[in-house]
Amino acid sequence: MGEFDLISRLTARAGARADIALGIGDDAALLQVPPGEQLVACCDTLNEGVHFLAGTDAGDISWKSLAVNLSDLAAMGARPAWTLLSLSLPRADRELVDGFIEGFHALASQAEAALVGGDTTSGPLSICVTALGLVPPGRALRRDGAQVGDLVCVSGTLGDAAAALNRARAGAPVDSAAARALQSRMRRPTPRLALGLALRGVAHAAIDVSDGLLADLGHIARASAVGLRLEAAALPASEALRALFPAEDCLRFQAIGGDDYELAFTLPPQRLELLRALGADLGVEISVIGQVVAGDGVRLEAPDGAAIDFGCTGWEHFTGSPP
Amino acid sequence: MGEFDLISRLTARAGARADIALGIGDDAALLQVPPGEQLVACCDTLNEGVHFLAGTDAGDISWKSLAVNLSDLAAMGARPAWTLLSLSLPRADRELVDGFIEGFHALASQAEAALVGGDTTSGPLSICVTALGLVPPGRALRRDGAQVGDLVCVSGTLGDAAAALNRARAGAPVDSAAARALQSRMRRPTPRLALGLALRGVAHAAIDVSDGLLADLGHIARASAVGLRLEAAALPASEALRALFPAEDCLRFQAIGGDDYELAFTLPPQRLELLRALGADLGVEISVIGQVVAGDGVRLEAPDGAAIDFGCTGWEHFTGSPP
Repeated sequence: MGEFDLISRLTARAGARADIALGIGDDAALLQVPPGEQLVACCDTLNEGVHFLAGTDAGDISWKSLAVNLSDLAAMGARPAWTLLSLSLPRADRELVDGFIEGFHALASQAEAALVGGDTTSGPLSICVTALGLVPPGRALRRDGAQVGDLVCVSGTLGDAAAALNRARAGAPVDSAAARALQSRMRRPTPRLALGLALRGVAHAAIDVSDGLLADLGHIARASAVGLRLEAAALPASEALRALFPAEDCLRFQAIGGDDYELAFTLPPQRLELLRALGADLGVEISVIGQVVAGDGVRLEAPDGAAIDFGCTGWEHFTGSPP
Repeated sequence: MGEFDLISRLTARAGARADIALGIGDDAALLQVPPGEQLVACCDTLNEGVHFLAGTDAGDISWKSLAVNLSDLAAMGARPAWTLLSLSLPRADRELVDGFIEGFHALASQAEAALVGGDTTSGPLSICVTALGLVPPGRALRRDGAQVGDLVCVSGTLGDAAAALNRARAGAPVDSAAARALQSRMRRPTPRLALGLALRGVAHAAIDVSDGLLADLGHIARASAVGLRLEAAALPASEALRALFPAEDCLRFQAIGGDDYELAFTLPPQRLELLRALGADLGVEISVIGQVVAGDGVRLEAPDGAAIDFGCTGWEHFTGSPP
């Protein structure tokens, strides 16, 4: 299979939108941003051996490469519109390519995000996705809006993907419903797009949990010039996580494991009822995990009020200490 | 140097534009597309060992990673606005990072393209750039507008970068002005942005020469459902190329070498005077290299009218045959 065959197979599943004046097949795509909308743009790469283990299913890789970008759009309260895909493959064999296209398309079609361009090249396995979305001016969820007195909340459960990675590295078998549940969270995370849209005008600040809860909430604290106080006992955990790991490991995965792609956000306490209703409507579990205080930094507290310190707050490339 | 130090160094040279509502530092950028403009989007990756040789200067790599994308915008007749950069580095040492930032910034500031986002990650050396530009609806240069009777033109000279790569692979020293001229064309190509803007409403179809002149013009032929007849003797060559290679090698580099980032385009003969004036204004050499005919494909003819066949038309990944 050559480069142009690969491109034509990608193009066949690119998806359609009325706002695409010219899609794949020219030097660049021509896109119509609707009047009254701002463009929201982000770009993230996944590399083999860094972001996913060698031997990971091609469909899972491509799903995740799109999911991590859609998660960034969700964290801005943006609606996805278009994507560009830059795909480096060591070889273009049909099975790999078709698996890759399946995973990407499965999530893209759910999210109504059309593929409008990119490139394919030979090289070490690596996927760079650019996601472009739309949000009305002034309605985006940002990191710098948290206010003292806000509640700190998070969607879903935390730590599942980090726990799955821990098991995979240790060679633990995926031989139970709980192990499969964790693995699925690592391989095909769900970007919280509907929740992001629902949080427009409700949340004061938001971020997605990718590097680790403490690291990511640290960005909100810095950008908003506030402190965050979190209760360790309030961090949501899945039944699968609790079934497979002792409490101490669970907390570590939840607090600094990252790779969750849940939304962490702050909002005034008087909107909690509204939030509960939104969560129920969307079928998304919402947990209140702490509050915004005067000061700086993120403090994770045990039930006795003692600060819990893991020595790092999450993943950082180059100096990074994955849990 | 850690990831966040690297990001802050990139951010310091990101460039400013009034249409950036929110730049680097949140989950995604917020951008204001002006009313009456379409968004133009493209994305290309450069991998070490595939698109550039190991040991290439970091500033040259980053310049080129941006240049190849701006060249795509130029080929659409678009004005650059914003870029996203996804950078994979095996290690984040300061010298490498600062060199990288210098090259990227040097071209970005010339092109008035601000860096608004992206990511940095550990991995094999690889750079993915997304370029976003603007063009009024209906004014973009496309591949599908060539008409029978049009002249085929190309800017600048062809084959220099391919010749430089050929010399580098052979271990030839860069020990003369001619050798340095070729190397410079390979390392820091010039995207033809001003020419692209000037060709709005003048050219019927355009593409940038990246894979190889014959391959790239083949895209125009297919998209426009026409044939192209090119005169080998009319392909423009630099003095440096002619000084260092015999005519037969020159022609091969010019026709299928690629990596030129010149614009190839078609226009009706009655606009040739106008084109000459535009080229003179911009200081860009323009060569008429052939014509658009009924039929299909691209035929390169020797002075005696015989077809010249190199066995391939340019670079193709996975099955590719670089000249």
